[in-house]
Amino acid sequence: MKNYHMSPDEFRKQGKQMIDWIADYYDTIEKYPVLSQVKPGEIKDQLPETPPMESESMEQIMLDVNSIIMPGITHWQSPNFFAYFPANTSGPSILGDLLSSGLGVQGMLWATSPSCTELETRVLDWLADMLQLPEKFKSASAGGAVIQDTASSAALSALLAARERKTNYQSNEVGCMGNLVAYVSSQTHSSVEKAAKIAGIGKNNLRLIGVDDNHAMRTDLLETAIRKDLNDGLIPFFVCATVGTTSTNAIDPLAEIGAISQKHQLWMHIDAAMSGTAAICPEYRSILNGVEYADSFSFNPHKWMFTNFDCNCFFVADRSVLIKTLSILPEYLKNQATESGSVFDYRDWHIQLGRRFRSLKLWFVIRHYGVNGLRYHIKEHIRIAQQFAGWIRESTNFKIIAPAPLNLVCFAHKNGNEFNRKLLELINSRGKMYFTHTVIKDQFTLRMCIAQTNTDYEHVLQAWKTIQETAVELENMFNNKPQNE
Amino acid sequence: MKNYHMSPDEFRKQGKQMIDWIADYYDTIEKYPVLSQVKPGEIKDQLPETPPMESESMEQIMLDVNSIIMPGITHWQSPNFFAYFPANTSGPSILGDLLSSGLGVQGMLWATSPSCTELETRVLDWLADMLQLPEKFKSASAGGAVIQDTASSAALSALLAARERKTNYQSNEVGCMGNLVAYVSSQTHSSVEKAAKIAGIGKNNLRLIGVDDNHAMRTDLLETAIRKDLNDGLIPFFVCATVGTTSTNAIDPLAEIGAISQKHQLWMHIDAAMSGTAAICPEYRSILNGVEYADSFSFNPHKWMFTNFDCNCFFVADRSVLIKTLSILPEYLKNQATESGSVFDYRDWHIQLGRRFRSLKLWFVIRHYGVNGLRYHIKEHIRIAQQFAGWIRESTNFKIIAPAPLNLVCFAHKNGNEFNRKLLELINSRGKMYFTHTVIKDQFTLRMCIAQTNTDYEHVLQAWKTIQETAVELENMFNNKPQNE
Repeated sequence: MKNYHMSPDEFRKQGKQMIDWIADYYDTIEKYPVLSQVKPGEIKDQLPETPPMESESMEQIMLDVNSIIMPGITHWQSPNFFAYFPANTSGPSILGDLLSSGLGVQGMLWATSPSCTELETRVLDWLADMLQLPEKFKSASAGGAVIQDTASSAALSALLAARERKTNYQSNEVGCMGNLVAYVSSQTHSSVEKAAKIAGIGKNNLRLIGVDDNHAMRTDLLETAIRKDLNDGLIPFFVCATVGTTSTNAIDPLAEIGAISQKHQLWMHIDAAMSGTAAICPEYRSILNGVEYADSFSFNPHKWMFTNFDCNCFFVADRSVLIKTLSILPEYLKNQATESGSVFDYRDWHIQLGRRFRSLKLWFVIRHYGVNGLRYHIKEHIRIAQQFAGWIRESTNFKIIAPAPLNLVCFAHKNGNEFNRKLLELINSRGKMYFTHTVIKDQFTLRMCIAQTNTDYEHVLQAWKTIQETAVELENMFNNKPQNE
Repeated sequence: MKNYHMSPDEFRKQGKQMIDWIADYYDTIEKYPVLSQVKPGEIKDQLPETPPMESESMEQIMLDVNSIIMPGITHWQSPNFFAYFPANTSGPSILGDLLSSGLGVQGMLWATSPSCTELETRVLDWLADMLQLPEKFKSASAGGAVIQDTASSAALSALLAARERKTNYQSNEVGCMGNLVAYVSSQTHSSVEKAAKIAGIGKNNLRLIGVDDNHAMRTDLLETAIRKDLNDGLIPFFVCATVGTTSTNAIDPLAEIGAISQKHQLWMHIDAAMSGTAAICPEYRSILNGVEYADSFSFNPHKWMFTNFDCNCFFVADRSVLIKTLSILPEYLKNQATESGSVFDYRDWHIQLGRRFRSLKLWFVIRHYGVNGLRYHIKEHIRIAQQFAGWIRESTNFKIIAPAPLNLVCFAHKNGNEFNRKLLELINSRGKMYFTHTVIKDQFTLRMCIAQTNTDYEHVLQAWKTIQETAVELENMFNNKPQNE
């Protein structure tokens, strides 16, 4: 029979070349400009407008990877990537993901690969222990956990479960009625606003609670807002607390928010997307104090725990609410195991039906590093971030803009917003490092997030030198400007 | 500095062993029972209850993969997997996905890796041409396409865009009001019901339109339902047509549904999750006749086009509606490219914010096979499925239960439901093949879906022999039962 498939032997050969390509990439990654400098359309214009009719060789494809694709890559795995929140990875994670691709398992139901479900349950129980989460979030209790793609999807799942619990599952039946109200801080990630829109709650029914000087939610204002809404005949149902906001890494007062949630019977979700990982270190576990109040909790090993995107871990205290909210059981998915009630069918724990075998990469990472290895590297990242924050504090030209409790440092040059904007652009355009910005109380603020797997002291020291030197250069440029310009 | 990371050299060594492991797996895949025979809890019980404190070797991890994980795998990539709809894959897809894991790019914005966005746009334009979709779905028009994880997420995105277009973006602001109505057939995939719940529409506002003898939506009933809802003061806004329903592979009358959608200004979404792939063959392109009416269209290369899960392609005729529905722009994501308006930021095209570089695997697959290679294998699958359907029709003991237009054959033994249920269980329990069931008009129906990458004539012939022999065996068991049992 004619056959266009890649044979196992050809796969062996090409696969090993790909492994070498990736190893070479990591060996040389610092040679690339961190932020791609291509112009819009530049990559697309080099790609043919029509697909090939006949088979092309892997050699030809990899030539195009090198010449066309690579210039358009922003190197998230460069140790000089300090932008946004990271999406780091590691060798064992890549291998776990490769095994997942090779097995090609679709784990929508327990029966469609029991290992896919049971390894996930076990590894998430491990993580609950590593984070010292309350027992209620473990599978042997009424709760449990699931791997989602992102914190956005986890927040949406939490919001939906909250909506259904509050309306006794009637929103699922008759739709939303515009009277449910959710609470976040003004610093909460935009994904919760997106979730409120998606879930039919509406942006106008999402209250953005003000923050204190540390950019953490003010619980007095939360309480006031809830009382006002109750007085107005509305139905408060959900609050999202953040451990490590995106702008400044602020940590909301979990216990206080939790007490208010209990009083008013709100679903309390905790978004600890990046910073949750720090809680695996006993020294930093206090960032989760108050998690015992939460109905759900999520963090992303794909940000800071050396596990490649996508891997969000979503824990719920009462899995029955989540499952009742998201469950659908058509005839063609019925099977004995599901009907026995003795297994988890994870398709009822998230938006999608189908799912990859994502626990493999998480399992590989935890076993390769060991808990102590993970703790070591997380503490190192925080240590060098604190060193960087110290240099800023000691500097005469720069200032710290927000507290830096962990691995994100928010700072600015004292020369004002326009100067800081130009400083950011100039540094990023030169490709030696990449960082991004936020705006805090009208202050254009530079964000330096230290969490890429291979980032060490030397990278951060070099970055600090680059920042200082570029600022001097920019000051000279400003000073040399002709007066009439 | 102390370091727990896997070095590039160690990655080279371990990576090549993993490639060999996967190649060996495909060489021997038919030795495994297709459907895992483990009992609930059996896998989890073999995994330690606590995570390792110290680093473990890859050798140890792979020993556990072999001894603990593999018995709990249901082998979706076995050529004897005929269950559900498939989630097939191929060598080039695994390699593309490996490259994606290695690069570790997070493509939420154009700027965070221009290649991630622009390759995706180009490859989806290729697919639009391969499927002969109208120009409106291509990026040079007002439309465009995005890779989503699954058809469930695509359907949800379509439903949300429809909701916002109909309410002039007010649902996003004030929430849903319980008065929007959506239409599907009784055979539409359950993901649309799930989407209606998620989006605050409510299950009660989803009309399940009856089907004809071919299990396709009856447009007279659709028209009647819309008129009734309009008379009741409700607001019809969305219809989902299916090309290849999950139960029986029925094809809804797209043009007729399209005309009704236009008349009543509904958003028409087409779900062609598995069967859409057949339309890349000119011989089968007619299954998409009427797609010109659609506002959105989606299909899954991860089902039948040799591209590993997850890879859904979601096309929209007017991208501005989708983007306006799902867009969020906090300060920390602002950048020059986004502000210029000259680029796509795909995070505004779906539920999630973060995203993998998934177009790589799709690009690898299309280039490795070439359009002709893809067509060849798709046509082969259909050819052998039709052969199987012919054997059923000629058989004296079995009957065809639904038309088999492509690669799914619905059939049953003439002995009745209990016999068919036992037949399915007995065959699956023996591990030589795996297929699943549906129920059609109270008839317990066996489903044989022929779409795994390496399935060829011999596998299907063997499967047919196994089905016949097991039926005879089961008849003897039934006949030999003592009368008093």
